[in-house]
Amino acid sequence: MTSDLLSELRAAIGEGAVLTDPTDMAAYVTDWTGSFTGSALAVVRPASTAEVAAAVRLCAEAGVGVVPQGGNTGLVGGGVPDPDGSQVVLSLGRMRRVREVDPVADTLVVEAGTPLATVQEAAAAAGRLFPLSLGSEGSCTIGGTIATNAGGTAVLRYGMMRELVLGLKVVLPDGRVWDGLRPLRKDNTGYDLKQLFIGSEGTLGVVTAAVLRLLPATPRRATALVALDSVEAATTLLPLLRKHGGGQLTTWELLGRQAVDLVLTHLPALRDPFSQRHEWYGLVELAGTSTDVDERLETALEAAASQGLLLDAVVAGSPAQRESLCALREGVSEAQKSEGATLKHDITVPIRALPRFVAEVGPTLLAALPGLRLVTYGHVGDGNLHYNLSAPVGDDAALRRAAPTLTRMIYEAVTVLGGSISAEHGIGALKRDAAAAYKTGVEIDLLRAVKQAIDPDGVMNPRKLFPVREASRS
Amino acid sequence: MTSDLLSELRAAIGEGAVLTDPTDMAAYVTDWTGSFTGSALAVVRPASTAEVAAAVRLCAEAGVGVVPQGGNTGLVGGGVPDPDGSQVVLSLGRMRRVREVDPVADTLVVEAGTPLATVQEAAAAAGRLFPLSLGSEGSCTIGGTIATNAGGTAVLRYGMMRELVLGLKVVLPDGRVWDGLRPLRKDNTGYDLKQLFIGSEGTLGVVTAAVLRLLPATPRRATALVALDSVEAATTLLPLLRKHGGGQLTTWELLGRQAVDLVLTHLPALRDPFSQRHEWYGLVELAGTSTDVDERLETALEAAASQGLLLDAVVAGSPAQRESLCALREGVSEAQKSEGATLKHDITVPIRALPRFVAEVGPTLLAALPGLRLVTYGHVGDGNLHYNLSAPVGDDAALRRAAPTLTRMIYEAVTVLGGSISAEHGIGALKRDAAAAYKTGVEIDLLRAVKQAIDPDGVMNPRKLFPVREASRS
Repeated sequence: MTSDLLSELRAAIGEGAVLTDPTDMAAYVTDWTGSFTGSALAVVRPASTAEVAAAVRLCAEAGVGVVPQGGNTGLVGGGVPDPDGSQVVLSLGRMRRVREVDPVADTLVVEAGTPLATVQEAAAAAGRLFPLSLGSEGSCTIGGTIATNAGGTAVLRYGMMRELVLGLKVVLPDGRVWDGLRPLRKDNTGYDLKQLFIGSEGTLGVVTAAVLRLLPATPRRATALVALDSVEAATTLLPLLRKHGGGQLTTWELLGRQAVDLVLTHLPALRDPFSQRHEWYGLVELAGTSTDVDERLETALEAAASQGLLLDAVVAGSPAQRESLCALREGVSEAQKSEGATLKHDITVPIRALPRFVAEVGPTLLAALPGLRLVTYGHVGDGNLHYNLSAPVGDDAALRRAAPTLTRMIYEAVTVLGGSISAEHGIGALKRDAAAAYKTGVEIDLLRAVKQAIDPDGVMNPRKLFPVREASRS
Repeated sequence: MTSDLLSELRAAIGEGAVLTDPTDMAAYVTDWTGSFTGSALAVVRPASTAEVAAAVRLCAEAGVGVVPQGGNTGLVGGGVPDPDGSQVVLSLGRMRRVREVDPVADTLVVEAGTPLATVQEAAAAAGRLFPLSLGSEGSCTIGGTIATNAGGTAVLRYGMMRELVLGLKVVLPDGRVWDGLRPLRKDNTGYDLKQLFIGSEGTLGVVTAAVLRLLPATPRRATALVALDSVEAATTLLPLLRKHGGGQLTTWELLGRQAVDLVLTHLPALRDPFSQRHEWYGLVELAGTSTDVDERLETALEAAASQGLLLDAVVAGSPAQRESLCALREGVSEAQKSEGATLKHDITVPIRALPRFVAEVGPTLLAALPGLRLVTYGHVGDGNLHYNLSAPVGDDAALRRAAPTLTRMIYEAVTVLGGSISAEHGIGALKRDAAAAYKTGVEIDLLRAVKQAIDPDGVMNPRKLFPVREASRS
């Protein structure tokens, strides 16, 4: 049966496109964080939508689950097969062509396996901007960013990946192809089917191509790091920055003291730009086409200072200075990795609730595990915190023991405040039980109804997104 | 049975909230264009989500279809009941409260029956902008604009209603309530359920409240009317206007000669701002916070002139001048109504295909009906044309006879070019057969699967969106 499927797959998409040797498959069955390792019946690497369709159809007929995979850079194990070796990994890595850039319509047509950075470059070559930007942009694929509805640092201005997609081509769980690869900005002829697949984490079909939106290039940037006395100062500053930013505010990031300390410790090339230590910092950036952005930033900072919201501020006077300010924010993840055991949470709360969340949750976590280090940073404009925890100095084991309790405390607080336990990383395998536990029964019923409608036989990415056995509240 | 339902509805939501007298129901069973007239078992006017839920549950239990209705300003008969008098109209008109405006998070919470204009005013009172703008904004409701994914004149900059919705509360077809009334900009915990209901035209549930996005106010506007020699000049100008607009380009509208002639004939207060007649006109507007918009418009027009793309241009020097330029565009619909029989088409094609569409379709229509007047105008930036036809002078009957043929010719051309036969008005009753005829079998299957998953008993807005008996192409 299994060998039948393998030979049918080889016949359909070519001998070399079906990997079964464990060495060849190794890179596809473990995620890049190393937290998720599975095993696969085979890894298939189709080169066209027709080949994807053929592969999915054969798997569906054989009753074998299909795990779509882009750059394998996900953080929640969504693209890794189950450990039992019963599933086929479908890698889009050979479909990496930018098919068309249309500078009149401001659209770009691209195959799903194309790296995000390639799309950014194609947009730039046409004098345009593709604004989605992630740490993994060199490796992650467009298909993966669509399947996970990726976010990043410019969501405040440009929205998530969902808002950048105009059309999709999708192979459905039975191997049929839905051709919604349309560049239309307006099409009210029924439910917006592409929305089903964006953010579905491979559980409803395989995206093989997309039409993306392009935006005006913003070569001129004005950047500042400001020192703040509280998270509340950061949320209070948001409307002020927006007002003076005139639509050019791109970034408003928060950085806690311990995050900065870790960066300064582990990335010795960086220095604290202020003479005094502060509890909180904000990184603000405006981007546009002219020096207008510099004037707007200056006006905004003056207004902020006159309202007593700034303890200090440093404006980048050169691209190099900008890089070093941004590096303080971008270095957190790497610095934290060097500091021992880490427990990460990617959460959103309503923006107004950010100060209360930080003020209330921190002390309860510290009470549960004295010495715990709260490495708090994130995107103020989206209400999204990377609320990460580092182990007490020298005691990684303590963090590992306390992890389930700490995570539960955080998720409870997020839920009480009306937030989300996964802002931009998704559910995958990591959060499938937690996500179900914090959703209402009605919402779970709706999610399951959609899954059942599109993938009744459960071919696509089995046991992701939905718990095998679910819990639910009311 | 019917009288049982009526008394249960009265018991659940109050005697005065259940209308059955034909005189009382008249305004709810005919649409405002007068093209669609139905008949209802009752019109119910609940005052809360709980009352909506109770009414829907009772109808579902009785096997009676529910037709949700907002301001009854739709253009495709989507909110009007069937003629057989078997359905209940559910009017949201009593749920008209703006519950909250949050200037930090830039969000607004509103009940579904609130008029769009009320939301615009609430945003303005908080120094913010709610950018959706429609001719019917004084009467149409937020629930209606969500159910139809409304568009309008600022889509180029701000997108459709879909892009302005953060959260929804929805009564499902069985009377349960899905509470997705969240203000979160990031929430990747499963399929984005709200997307199902946006643009679903009342066929999946009843939206009772929404969280909407607010944007920076743009009090300063720079407006010009330009004369063009072709549609191609309008599409060629688009990237140039965007480039110089620096993200502040809000409007880029196209107006054909015959549209302007009708306006000048029927709205005698208006005058042609140019000394010569031209075949095509473009209305461009930038909006922002400072005189920057004036400078940007000037630069853009200079660049356009230096490339030979402009035949002439007039820049509004005062708010009154702006009004009179915009009135040329806004007056088309009214002027056309005074000119006799009209056949309207709300279509999109890929932006690059606009010139070809206009060049190829016009002559074939004129060949089919000599004397036909092509009243072409629309939103260049969205590829959306209101491709309207006026009868040959004095021969309304000829247009009525030719209407099915002319519409079919237009829809065929739209489909060949990869466009949509409904850009922003929706399907409703008017286009349900046509929409199915131009969709693939796979797409129709997906649409039906979603309907079946969420509303298996067909309670919500029966016989809208989907044809009773469908045609499909391959």
